[in-house]
Amino acid sequence: MTPPNTLFDLEPEGVPKKKAAAKKAAGKKAATKKAEPKPKTAAPRRRATAQSMAQKQREISVSEFFTKNRHLLGFDSPLKALLTAVKEAVDNSLDACEEAGILPEIAVELQQKTEKTFRMCVEDNGPGIIDTQIGKVFGKLLYGSKFHKLSQSRGQQGIGISAAGMYGQLTTGKPVRILSKTGKRKPAVEFMLSIDTAKNRPEIHSAEEAQWEKSHGTRVEIEMEAKYQKGLRSVDMYIKQTAIANPHLTLHFTDPTGEKVTYARNTKEMPPETIEIKPHPHGVELGRMIAMLKDTSCRSLSGFLQEEFSRVGPKVAKTIIKSAGKSLTEKSYPSRIAREEASALHTAIQDTKISSPSTECIAPIGEELLLAGLKKELEADFYVAATRPAAVYRGNPFQIEVGIAYGKPGGVGLEMNDEGRIKKKDKAKASTEDLVGAADEQIRVLRLANRVPLLYQQSACAINKGVIQTNWRQYGMNQPRGGLPVGPMAVVVHIASVWVPFTSESKEAIASYPEILKEIKLALQICGRKLGTYIRKGKRLKREFDKREYIEKYIPHIGIALQEIMGLTNTERDKTVDTLEDVLHKSRKF
Amino acid sequence: MTPPNTLFDLEPEGVPKKKAAAKKAAGKKAATKKAEPKPKTAAPRRRATAQSMAQKQREISVSEFFTKNRHLLGFDSPLKALLTAVKEAVDNSLDACEEAGILPEIAVELQQKTEKTFRMCVEDNGPGIIDTQIGKVFGKLLYGSKFHKLSQSRGQQGIGISAAGMYGQLTTGKPVRILSKTGKRKPAVEFMLSIDTAKNRPEIHSAEEAQWEKSHGTRVEIEMEAKYQKGLRSVDMYIKQTAIANPHLTLHFTDPTGEKVTYARNTKEMPPETIEIKPHPHGVELGRMIAMLKDTSCRSLSGFLQEEFSRVGPKVAKTIIKSAGKSLTEKSYPSRIAREEASALHTAIQDTKISSPSTECIAPIGEELLLAGLKKELEADFYVAATRPAAVYRGNPFQIEVGIAYGKPGGVGLEMNDEGRIKKKDKAKASTEDLVGAADEQIRVLRLANRVPLLYQQSACAINKGVIQTNWRQYGMNQPRGGLPVGPMAVVVHIASVWVPFTSESKEAIASYPEILKEIKLALQICGRKLGTYIRKGKRLKREFDKREYIEKYIPHIGIALQEIMGLTNTERDKTVDTLEDVLHKSRKF
Repeated sequence: MTPPNTLFDLEPEGVPKKKAAAKKAAGKKAATKKAEPKPKTAAPRRRATAQSMAQKQREISVSEFFTKNRHLLGFDSPLKALLTAVKEAVDNSLDACEEAGILPEIAVELQQKTEKTFRMCVEDNGPGIIDTQIGKVFGKLLYGSKFHKLSQSRGQQGIGISAAGMYGQLTTGKPVRILSKTGKRKPAVEFMLSIDTAKNRPEIHSAEEAQWEKSHGTRVEIEMEAKYQKGLRSVDMYIKQTAIANPHLTLHFTDPTGEKVTYARNTKEMPPETIEIKPHPHGVELGRMIAMLKDTSCRSLSGFLQEEFSRVGPKVAKTIIKSAGKSLTEKSYPSRIAREEASALHTAIQDTKISSPSTECIAPIGEELLLAGLKKELEADFYVAATRPAAVYRGNPFQIEVGIAYGKPGGVGLEMNDEGRIKKKDKAKASTEDLVGAADEQIRVLRLANRVPLLYQQSACAINKGVIQTNWRQYGMNQPRGGLPVGPMAVVVHIASVWVPFTSESKEAIASYPEILKEIKLALQICGRKLGTYIRKGKRLKREFDKREYIEKYIPHIGIALQEIMGLTNTERDKTVDTLEDVLHKSRKF
Repeated sequence: MTPPNTLFDLEPEGVPKKKAAAKKAAGKKAATKKAEPKPKTAAPRRRATAQSMAQKQREISVSEFFTKNRHLLGFDSPLKALLTAVKEAVDNSLDACEEAGILPEIAVELQQKTEKTFRMCVEDNGPGIIDTQIGKVFGKLLYGSKFHKLSQSRGQQGIGISAAGMYGQLTTGKPVRILSKTGKRKPAVEFMLSIDTAKNRPEIHSAEEAQWEKSHGTRVEIEMEAKYQKGLRSVDMYIKQTAIANPHLTLHFTDPTGEKVTYARNTKEMPPETIEIKPHPHGVELGRMIAMLKDTSCRSLSGFLQEEFSRVGPKVAKTIIKSAGKSLTEKSYPSRIAREEASALHTAIQDTKISSPSTECIAPIGEELLLAGLKKELEADFYVAATRPAAVYRGNPFQIEVGIAYGKPGGVGLEMNDEGRIKKKDKAKASTEDLVGAADEQIRVLRLANRVPLLYQQSACAINKGVIQTNWRQYGMNQPRGGLPVGPMAVVVHIASVWVPFTSESKEAIASYPEILKEIKLALQICGRKLGTYIRKGKRLKREFDKREYIEKYIPHIGIALQEIMGLTNTERDKTVDTLEDVLHKSRKF
């Protein structure tokens, strides 16, 4: 390759006068402060050279990077930091329990230590962590098992819990405490550790055997600068939503005042096992494919395509290779394929029709359990849920489900019981948390990604966009233009995917891929139509209820009149009255 | 420390049935697929154990992380990727030139290679990069000289240019080409390299001596999947705004059609040298301070406070140590200070009044040069600029400046020349890029951070918020509630800081710290008031112009009449007419 013609074609006006800098670059160390007289600028200037600059360059550890940029991980304010830390710990516990096939039972406790500091304790009954791994799992950023595989899990990056510990260390100077036990006949181990941020590696202060009555599990304690308050983006709310999204989980929460809540599990059935899948050919970039060609153990191109990708069989492989051009055959040796050939292969893949990836790797909550969760945790008059079939964005399978809870008990509506009878409302039972808001408020949008509640950055999230872009007026709701609908309603939207496309590492909002947005809107429409029927029915119901109440008053009198006319016994009369009431109910058109 | 009481106080319902998992954890390798009969779930489940999970855990390289999450760095779409790559390369060139005291001259060229791929070439006249560093600078993420120091520079993280190369490699499979020369008598070197993403280190394909007529500089070429189009967030716009923000820069740009533009420098004066400062005590977290206490070479606490922080003298140090409590003295040995003492010290620092950090480390563009830049690159009727004094957020000094260009030439307004006379507008000169929009459009907000234009995520940016929160109606502009004002106007806001708080690594938006928002609004108000005067004056001017035009018609006739009455010569008459015209101009009240 020859050097290019320079791009400059003007005379470099400023340059000749600055030759000195280049000369200096020829050897001297530039830490010397020798100021040279300069013609154009007034003050003498300490000049750097290529050499002096090279001396200052060094590697930045990923821990240092994220300490300085901790807002990227969700540790930007004491309020949010507390939530993020709890979330990361609970995510890890749930993932571990599910992977080990253990029905999860998790306890979260917050203790206030000083005015500004709290201790967070999260304990699970998971499989535990073996002692040689504890340091790395809690004391090293970018360390984990989930980054390289395509399967649905809460954690993805191997950053979260270590970052929480790093934040604790940064704000209180205190190490993280970990207690773990991998089996009944194994001793528990207790670790005190911090992160050596300059090197991104754990610094273990102590590692000792300890007594723990549990048969297996992990407990992590982090002390940190934090702020605790109730509300829509509080730890309380996260805990409640986690319980809805994970019906197989029993969750205990103790808030800083010592108040305890337990969310008992709704089902003893574990979520279906999520299977790791291979990448879909349509979602793989050229550079990534070149790397795969190099790394594969397959000895033929055809084998490579079938082995390393999902949905490629002998026939599809043949079609791809054929359309990639003459220089490639099914027997081409993968690691010897040149860049140009690889590029042709990549184009051929994009041009070949390949069936969508298998969606068995996705484990949605399911309509039934989502509905049960909503009914248990959200007090409302009407519930509906829908799970869409799985779809694909950029080669990644995903699945959307939506649940709606509508109507504030004690508020506007009347309620029917399961037999279709109008039920008297138990108005005494007040909702403790306002997940279903007031009639004149914007609806609440509860966002879940792989069963994890998302509490921040709602407006940047595809879920929020999906709700706004749905026409709720057609379902009888009020909705200002370009805004969320208004009414006593909570909408839960769950996206399950092998790779949730978050807009930032703090995993707060989902990127608006068109495919995702479309599925969200379709799922909302399914629920919306049922909601519309209910809302309209509610309005009719109200009218009929008024009428019927009037008629019902007279049924006993009609009974007495019939008794006299037809000479009925008292039993016959009462039976007739019952029959009349039944007829009245059945005559309802809805 | 003793193990805690377990947080569980309910019987763990699901757990006993899952004991098997814990047993299994006692020794066997879990890759075995042996399915055990389970009482509660239907299908047999492959269970992971602490051991099998440990085997899957591994380190994730920061390159892999950012390849998968490349949207975090601004490489989410082909359109944005091109802009981001150019920006990163130009940022690096400018930083290097300024550090070396060289008046920068940079050439950017885009070449279309295929339908979907472009080659980006950026060449500077900077100090060059020595050959042992080239690999790391371009082939390793998180490597650089600017991360650890507090000084104003464009680059901060040591990610940008390597990430651009990584994106090119991922999408085209092609390596990055670098040409560099550190001095006239040194040979140029040519490198072809890619990034080994699994290890985050450079993979050098070739490194050879090359011929290059330049005396010093660096040229980088990256081929990547990209999309080129004109518009408000285009490379063209970035180039233009870079020229405005860097009046000492000569910038050549060749677009993919081969069209060339040159933005010649406005000044030969380099921006004032930015000095590295020490952290301000009020901006340092406890954990960071503990690390500093460990690392310092100072042998006394008093010395440590004075050496490692800015704005701490013997007196302030004394006050801090005194208020930190009895166990600490001025002579305490820093590395022997216990955590509890450090915590008391940290509290004492927060409670002590310490003067704000030195703001000499900030180099704003300056009102004069900003104004000159606006006048040169933006065609408008009225220009105003203001630079605020430096302020501080979280211990970091920053400075805000604002420039406004108002009025579309050939559009609404009339114009006065410097002597206050009404000038005829040159309506032929059309503006090539619509930086000053139409009268019925939202104004354009041009955001600059450390002289780098920000083109994405405007709505998430503190600058945008500052503009929206300013009441422009009082300055005679239209402004819908909660929105940007409407009118033919461009507002440039520049934040210069030793550490710009970006909301993401892609450096697109500035976090809304209250101090920053306040300064932005104050600067906008200064310019706004002058704009208001101009707009009101413009309205009066229009009225008076109509009147005066009418009077001016008659002045020659008055001259002739006076000549007749007073017997003036022609010269005397002309003089009188001139005097009358002068009197008329001076009689204007504004």
